[in-house]
Order: sequence, then structure tokens, then C-alpha cells
Amino acid sequence: MRTVRLTKETRNNLLEDLLKRSPNSYGEYEGRVAEIVEAVKEKGDAALFEYTQRFDGARIDASNVMVTEAEIAEAYEKTDPALVEVIRKALVNIRAYHEKQRQYSWFDSRPDGTMLGQKVTALAAAGVYVPGGKAVYPSSVLMNILPAKVAGVDKIIMVTPPGRDGKVNPSTLVAAHEAGADEVYKAGGAQAVAAMAFGTESIPKVDKIVGPGNIYVALAKKAVYGHVSIDSIAGPSEILVLADETANPRFVAADLLSQAEHDEMASAILITTSEELAAKVSMEVDGFLRELSRREIIEKSLDNYGYILLAESLEEAIETANEIASEHLEIVTKNPFEVMTKIRNAGAIFIGEYSSEPLGDYFAGPNHVLPTNGTAKFFSPLGVDDFVKKSSIIYYSKEALDPIHKDIIQFATSEQLTAHANSIRVRFEGEDKDE
Amino acid sequence: MRTVRLTKETRNNLLEDLLKRSPNSYGEYEGRVAEIVEAVKEKGDAALFEYTQRFDGARIDASNVMVTEAEIAEAYEKTDPALVEVIRKALVNIRAYHEKQRQYSWFDSRPDGTMLGQKVTALAAAGVYVPGGKAVYPSSVLMNILPAKVAGVDKIIMVTPPGRDGKVNPSTLVAAHEAGADEVYKAGGAQAVAAMAFGTESIPKVDKIVGPGNIYVALAKKAVYGHVSIDSIAGPSEILVLADETANPRFVAADLLSQAEHDEMASAILITTSEELAAKVSMEVDGFLRELSRREIIEKSLDNYGYILLAESLEEAIETANEIASEHLEIVTKNPFEVMTKIRNAGAIFIGEYSSEPLGDYFAGPNHVLPTNGTAKFFSPLGVDDFVKKSSIIYYSKEALDPIHKDIIQFATSEQLTAHANSIRVRFEGEDKDE
Repeated sequence: MRTVRLTKETRNNLLEDLLKRSPNSYGEYEGRVAEIVEAVKEKGDAALFEYTQRFDGARIDASNVMVTEAEIAEAYEKTDPALVEVIRKALVNIRAYHEKQRQYSWFDSRPDGTMLGQKVTALAAAGVYVPGGKAVYPSSVLMNILPAKVAGVDKIIMVTPPGRDGKVNPSTLVAAHEAGADEVYKAGGAQAVAAMAFGTESIPKVDKIVGPGNIYVALAKKAVYGHVSIDSIAGPSEILVLADETANPRFVAADLLSQAEHDEMASAILITTSEELAAKVSMEVDGFLRELSRREIIEKSLDNYGYILLAESLEEAIETANEIASEHLEIVTKNPFEVMTKIRNAGAIFIGEYSSEPLGDYFAGPNHVLPTNGTAKFFSPLGVDDFVKKSSIIYYSKEALDPIHKDIIQFATSEQLTAHANSIRVRFEGEDKDE
Repeated sequence: MRTVRLTKETRNNLLEDLLKRSPNSYGEYEGRVAEIVEAVKEKGDAALFEYTQRFDGARIDASNVMVTEAEIAEAYEKTDPALVEVIRKALVNIRAYHEKQRQYSWFDSRPDGTMLGQKVTALAAAGVYVPGGKAVYPSSVLMNILPAKVAGVDKIIMVTPPGRDGKVNPSTLVAAHEAGADEVYKAGGAQAVAAMAFGTESIPKVDKIVGPGNIYVALAKKAVYGHVSIDSIAGPSEILVLADETANPRFVAADLLSQAEHDEMASAILITTSEELAAKVSMEVDGFLRELSRREIIEKSLDNYGYILLAESLEEAIETANEIASEHLEIVTKNPFEVMTKIRNAGAIFIGEYSSEPLGDYFAGPNHVLPTNGTAKFFSPLGVDDFVKKSSIIYYSKEALDPIHKDIIQFATSEQLTAHANSIRVRFEGEDKDE
């Protein structure tokens, strides 16, 4: 891996470089996606099935678009029972963590007859997109469905592109069933996103669409945003390891590679204060590379966006980590908890040498759908918050309104909103002496 | 006002009609907005000042783009001291309500050496857009700045278009100063949004942009979404009054008009189970119309999107209210608290005959920036949540990882992510007997 000394210049170049991977700069596909979205909105099932034929090579119609109980039973038969066991164990942890995220309605009342509050309501329907193709990620199915389930969403549907044989991958189906998806549909790409945003004869309209996908899926989500809600649009995966001389170079190297294997745009960065660690990690990376099955992807990813950055001080390392705002941040230093308190921007923070990133991907409980590409500066991990929304509650009695009603009239009048003022005034007609 | 009996058909027609006001269907402006955004991104201040000259007719440059302390002092001199007093009273209530929305970081630890948690961090910088022109809304300035302030955002900037004389409206400035904006810049339109999204020589880059604006502002926010976060894109204002025979028709009529006066696209709807109330409200509306200064706007708005809907039962009324998902919902029935428990979708819920909508606009404390156009099904009022983000925290000791490490290896291997599996495996090298 290339090793670079941190300076203002190298840091700025790196930040600029990383942002080039932004899923927001694919303008050339937008027109094609807009066309697909519009067609599904207008023609419903007819357009959806035509695109499924064209893009997935599968003949799907209203009679077989929804996965049946028999197909789910078949999926269980085809899935390694040991994997089903592991899925169930992971599910317990993921559910337990998300239960802690639940927010409750509250109100605050006063003896004068006022009550203010905030009502938390689960969304009525949510749609989860699950990619098809060769890469199958049952863990991602769990991570997208469970927060909606814990939030109390009435109806959770999943869409995933069918293979040419019209079938859905077995372990995807098993994970969906274990997590509690209500319905699964065989549809993928921008057309599936549009179907969930507007509803078709077969696929119900939802309030929010979540889940990863290729550039067509990402752009379709962006296009329907506002008609429905969406999760943040995911970019390529990232890991940033912040380590000092106490870190185990073999562990650090293995963890960097665990993200680099995702795809060629993934980014794996070590920031360290120790030149010795830097050299050893680089060697360990070379060693592992010879053994790992996804060597080709890893090599390209490291060439593109892999760095070992040498920092002058832990403070400089922390500051750079906050500027990069990585999806995953591992802290492997003498006192990692102390460093954690100084981290402002990261999707998930892994503390200490045994908290390796894949622990979070599969098992610990926190969501693995995390903000990428610097968006951890303003976006949060997927969670229960994503599947609820709030309404303000306002109750004032006449006694409570009386002493402030002239203030409101004055404020409204200053904004020239005389009908607003009138709405307060009529409630005290004949009572105000200065009328 | 037109009175319509609720049927499945009238309801669906109405819902379709209301959605036509969606801020998501202005495709024709998108190209022009994209051009402005791109120019400001590339050329910074130079483009920003050129557009300010072209669209606002004001000569602004780096020397005067930021509002000075002297300009703020001047604004106070020009503002009615009674209005300043009212602003200060409202501010206390708004701050108090938003303080209750604060969320705290939490963690949960176990004796085996695991800690899971969620770290809540305020955004570093937020930008508030405030429209210029004839309509000046200091209340809106308070409502956009205060949640960011309560959340603990380090730097809150405000942008607002200057008049031809290069000045900003005094009461806007007073409200910004009272609410605690750190810096105010004279810039408006899509160019101001782009400046905050990418930063220019004069205007700092922010993490999130909030605040209402015209179609150019809304589209610019949509265009920069992903590079920064944005609040939900606001559509025209809406009120829905859900009332039975116990309601005071004069109050109901006044409240309907208080939203209708906003603009010609605003929607004012009464749903009632009482034909008598319907008739009386219609008469009162006619009466008020003769007196109100914004009569022309109100008449057009009522013609476009004003309805009195007659429901067979309270249940039907509630169901329709949930489908419309209005920005503001007033409940004026025999037992309004009971009805409130059945409301799923509304931006803000006003309970009882003295909780008129303008009370919420100006004074009660909850935010008046609310989801419009049916988006209350999935969006929430602006609040402290909008200015914080979360990071997951994961800590496992070796003892805690040991009993589950083979499960993780199995899960990762099933997804063919062998480098993920390797990252767990290296931590138990030489210890696993079956290696």
C-alpha cells in the first residue's frame, strides 16, 4: 500500500479524491432512469414487467411477481441449516440494539390548560430494495428490514430482481422471512423503485424506500424522493483505521482488506502515528493478498483509494479522521475510548483491537447500513428513526391563550398576515377593551 | 366555499388534486437551476455576485456580502420595539419546546467486555435560507435557527437576498440576531444554496441547508442533496379542520382563511360530520372575506384548493384526514384528545377550539416548519433531530468475541466475503483447533 505523510496538501488531495466516488455525479444516467420511472408511474405493471423481461431476462407477470409460501419453503430447503442458525443468532442481537433506539411520544402539560407534545408514529408501509446478481447479502436483508420491524411499520415489502429462471436467491428469501418481511416481489432496478414509490396493480405504494443498489437504483431513489422518503444514497464502502504503535499490524492489515474486497471503488485507509506500524501493515497486506480469493478487486481498490497516512500526532490523526468522516472507523490506540470521545464524524466507531469491522457487519447489533463518502458529517446509520415520523401536539385553553393573544396578533400583523391575526382576534370578540 | 359529500370518488379526486401542487413536478426549471449550481461550484464568489446583480439587482462583493454589526444595530433602530419584545417572548417558548427534543448519546455495557452505543453529535455548520422580497417572516427565521442552536451546531449562517439597495430587511436581521445566527450573508436564490453547499471564498460550506424558498431555491436544495443534507422541500401551506356539531363556525372559518391567505396554491379544508356547521362556516367565510386585506389571494386559494367535505361519520372523517396528511390539522370535536390518538398523519395537531393554527405559527413553541403535500406520512416537523447525527459505537473484548467468532466467519463465508472472514480469523490464529 502507498504510504503518504500527512500535510495540508496531501490531506486536501485525498479528500478531493475520495469525493470523486460520490454517487451524486452520474448525470449521464439520469435521463434513462427518469424515463423508466415515468413509464412505471404511468403504465404500472405493464411497464414493470416489460423492464423485468428486458433487464433481468425473466418472464414475470401478475400471477408470479409475488413470492409464494411454497417458494419460501423451497428456499429453506436449499439453504445450509447452519447458516439459518447464524442468521437467527444475528437477528437477536440486531433486534436488541434497535429496540434501544425506540423513541416515545411525549407531552408536557401545565395547570393553566396547555399541553405541548410530540407524537411518534411508525410509517404505514416501507419498501426494502435488495440487489440480485452474483453477490448475495442476507446480512443486508436483516439490517434493512429489522429497524422497520422494531419501529412498528405495518407493512414491510421487499423487492429483489429475479434470475433468468424467475427465481429469487434462497438465502435472501430466508433472511427476509426470518426478519419478518410481509411480502416479497420479484422486481429490480429503477423500475422496482418506481413501483414502490407510485404503486402498481401488483406492488403496493410505500412511504419510504431503503436498501442498497446499483447506480440505476440510486438515481431512481433520488428521483422519487419527495413523493416518498428514501434512506441516504450509499456510495462505495470505506474503512479508516486510526492506530498508534500499540496496534497489531496483522489485525490492522486484515481489517483494511475486509473493506477493500467490497469493490474497486472501496476505500481502505490507515492513519497512524507510527512509522513502524505503517511498514509492518504494508508487509502484512502483501502477505494476505497472496492468500485472499478476491485479490483482483482488492488490488484495484487499494491502488485507487488505499492509503497509509503518517500523522505527526494523535491530534492530527483525529482531525483528519473527522474530515474524512469514514463509514467505518476503527480506533486501535493505547486509550481508544478517550479517542472515541473526540470523534465527531463516522458512521460506526469500532473500539479496540478485537472490535473488527466484520463483527459490526454481521453480528454485534448496530446497523451496517451507514453513511458513506463523507456524509457521516450529516447523515446517521439506518435505524428505527428512519421508520417513524413525528407530529407536534398543541393544546391551549382559553385561559392559556388569553394573556398572549395580543402578542400573537401583533406578530401576525407585522408579517402582514391579517387573516392569521383575525383567527386569534375572533376568539376574544367583544372582550378586548381596545377593539 | 364549495361543499362536497365525501365518497370514495370525491376523496380520490381531492387527493389527486392536492398532489398536483407537489414541489416535485417542476421539471422545466431544473436545467436552469443546475447551470446556476454548477457555476457557483466552479467559480465561487465571482458567479455568486454576478447572479446577485442579475436576479436581485444589487451590487454585492466580498467587501459587503456579510452583514456587519453596524447593519444589525441599524436594523434594531428601524424595528418597532414592541415587535422585538414579542420576538423575545416567542423565542423563549420555541427554545423551551425544542430543548425537550434533545437526544442523548447512550451506551449499554456487559460484564463480558462488550459495549454498544449510539453517539449523538451536532452538525458542525448549518445554513438557513430566508426569502427576501415583500413578504417578510421573522417568525420563520426563529423557527429555522433555534432548533440548530438547541442542537448545539457550532456555526449557524443565514443567507437572504438583498434589496436593490444592498440592504436586508430589518426585522429579518433582528430575528436572526435574537435567535443567535453567527453570520448573515446577502445572497439569495439557487446561487445562495449552491454557495452554502460547496462554499465560496466568502461563504462557508455547511453540512445542512434548511429554510423555505421559491421554486429555484427548492430545486437547488434538491440538486445539492447528498453533497449536503437538506430539510424536506416545502410545498404550499395547508390546513385541515376536523370538526363536529360542537365547533364554533366563526372560529373554524377564521382558521381556514388564515392558511388560505398564504398563497393561491394554499389549501384550506374542513371535514365535518355536521351539515349545519358546513353551512354556517361557508357563510362566515363569505363574511370575513369582505373584511380581510388579502382577499384576492384568499379567493383564488379557496377556488383552487378550498373544500368543505361532509363525512358520514367521525371515523370516515378521521380516515380521510389521515389520507390527506395535512401540514396543520385542527381537531374541534366533542372529545378532541380521543380523536388525536387516532391521527397517524399530520405535521402539527391543534386540539380544541382555542388552539388556533396561528398560535402554533408564532408562539406556542413547536416548530412551524412542517411537512406539506401529503409528506406528513413520512416526514417530521423541523426539529433538533435535523441538526444532529448519530454514530454507532461497538466495543468487544477478546472474551466477548471468542464464543461468536466462528458464527461471523460462517456468515461472511456464505456471502463469499473471504477477507471479512479473514479479519475475524487472524484474531484467533493458532487457537482454533479445527484450523
